[in-house]
Amino acid sequence: MRVEIWTDIACPWCYVGKARFERALDGFAHRAQVEVVHRSFELDPSFPKGETVRVLSMLAKKYGMSEEQARQGEARLKENADGEGLGYVTEGRDSGNTFDMHRLLHLAKDRGRQDALIDGLYRGNFAEEESLFGDAERLVAIAVAAGLDEAETRAVLVDPEKYAADVRADEREAAELGANGVPFFVLDRRYGVSGAQPVEVFAQALQQAWDAQPRLTPVTAVAGAGEAGVCGPDGCAVPPRDGS
Amino acid sequence: MRVEIWTDIACPWCYVGKARFERALDGFAHRAQVEVVHRSFELDPSFPKGETVRVLSMLAKKYGMSEEQARQGEARLKENADGEGLGYVTEGRDSGNTFDMHRLLHLAKDRGRQDALIDGLYRGNFAEEESLFGDAERLVAIAVAAGLDEAETRAVLVDPEKYAADVRADEREAAELGANGVPFFVLDRRYGVSGAQPVEVFAQALQQAWDAQPRLTPVTAVAGAGEAGVCGPDGCAVPPRDGS
Repeated sequence: MRVEIWTDIACPWCYVGKARFERALDGFAHRAQVEVVHRSFELDPSFPKGETVRVLSMLAKKYGMSEEQARQGEARLKENADGEGLGYVTEGRDSGNTFDMHRLLHLAKDRGRQDALIDGLYRGNFAEEESLFGDAERLVAIAVAAGLDEAETRAVLVDPEKYAADVRADEREAAELGANGVPFFVLDRRYGVSGAQPVEVFAQALQQAWDAQPRLTPVTAVAGAGEAGVCGPDGCAVPPRDGS
Repeated sequence: MRVEIWTDIACPWCYVGKARFERALDGFAHRAQVEVVHRSFELDPSFPKGETVRVLSMLAKKYGMSEEQARQGEARLKENADGEGLGYVTEGRDSGNTFDMHRLLHLAKDRGRQDALIDGLYRGNFAEEESLFGDAERLVAIAVAAGLDEAETRAVLVDPEKYAADVRADEREAAELGANGVPFFVLDRRYGVSGAQPVEVFAQALQQAWDAQPRLTPVTAVAGAGEAGVCGPDGCAVPPRDGS
């Protein structure tokens, strides 16, 4: 079974939702048969690369609220993060363009390090005061700590084309699947769960998707399929000469 | 869409079947959306580790045929390999236990190098005269050429427990799916294709599985799901206080 999670590093509910989903997964009977893949979604793709903005000012400006109101929203998010044992900095945190992080997450996927990298990026962004935006060296350090090769990481960061198409493809797929916000969880391309739902909802969704797994339709359902070269415990059958 | 291919390195039809499947995949309109995973299947798990047997003698002994008859079977396999542009040594090739190769293929999967490693192992086994069995140094060389880390490869080879459970899990799944020979192709856990079928059959199967992809059932189908924390282009909604 496969779960795909569309997320953005700048998305606090993604950070919280991942932890809730993982609690559900840890308690799921078929946990070993579940593969998790993280997919890219940028909340603000037009944010100028390399620039940063203080989160509280951005929220206040974006919603025409006071900094104090923005601070209250952040406090609620911190409560939710606390509930999952996650660090959350409400003051001084900044935000920016996440495209390069998504490109690195695709490199990490290819190297089997995606989960470690996304955890490192979330922690770096939400639990620590230093900025993750506009500081390539910090990204490199987090990537290396997640098990990526330093030279390979730098090669991706300096070449804006590397993995760019993969990020765009993820975003197109999200749109096709009807996701207009994140986190967005897709189980076996069959069930969609939107938002940082309670653990019990993820547990239900896992069970529901598991129960809905299709039975295998054998080869005979494929037109033209006949006897073909196959090896079994008793040897390799060689089909009639025109079988290729 | 995901295609899982159960194979054994000692299986000539797996070698040929992979090439045929890939030809179909190269011509498939949605190629970029197809992920391929290789899964483990041992044709002869009881073969003593580290020992080797000449393939022609083994075939003759196993089937009570003459070496000449065994040679004819190999010649037919070579014709099929030739048809895919694959090297195939019919004389002097040996066989043995493939468990360690499967363990390495699981390491390679974790490092995003599985396809490169399986190609290297097939080539080493079928297209070259040197033995792949009982020669750990040759395995290391092939793994490193496929992009794996040398120290990590050696660490897996010297510890028979590493990835052993993953190999066994693949084999259990193959049995559950009804595979009693390889290659065995499973498309989205929905269609099963057995054997090195003609390219057109793989093309059909890909199209059929693509067309059968389920539509996404939204979150509301999951009991208990309600408004939950989600971030969109316009910001992060904070749900009612008991929403965690």
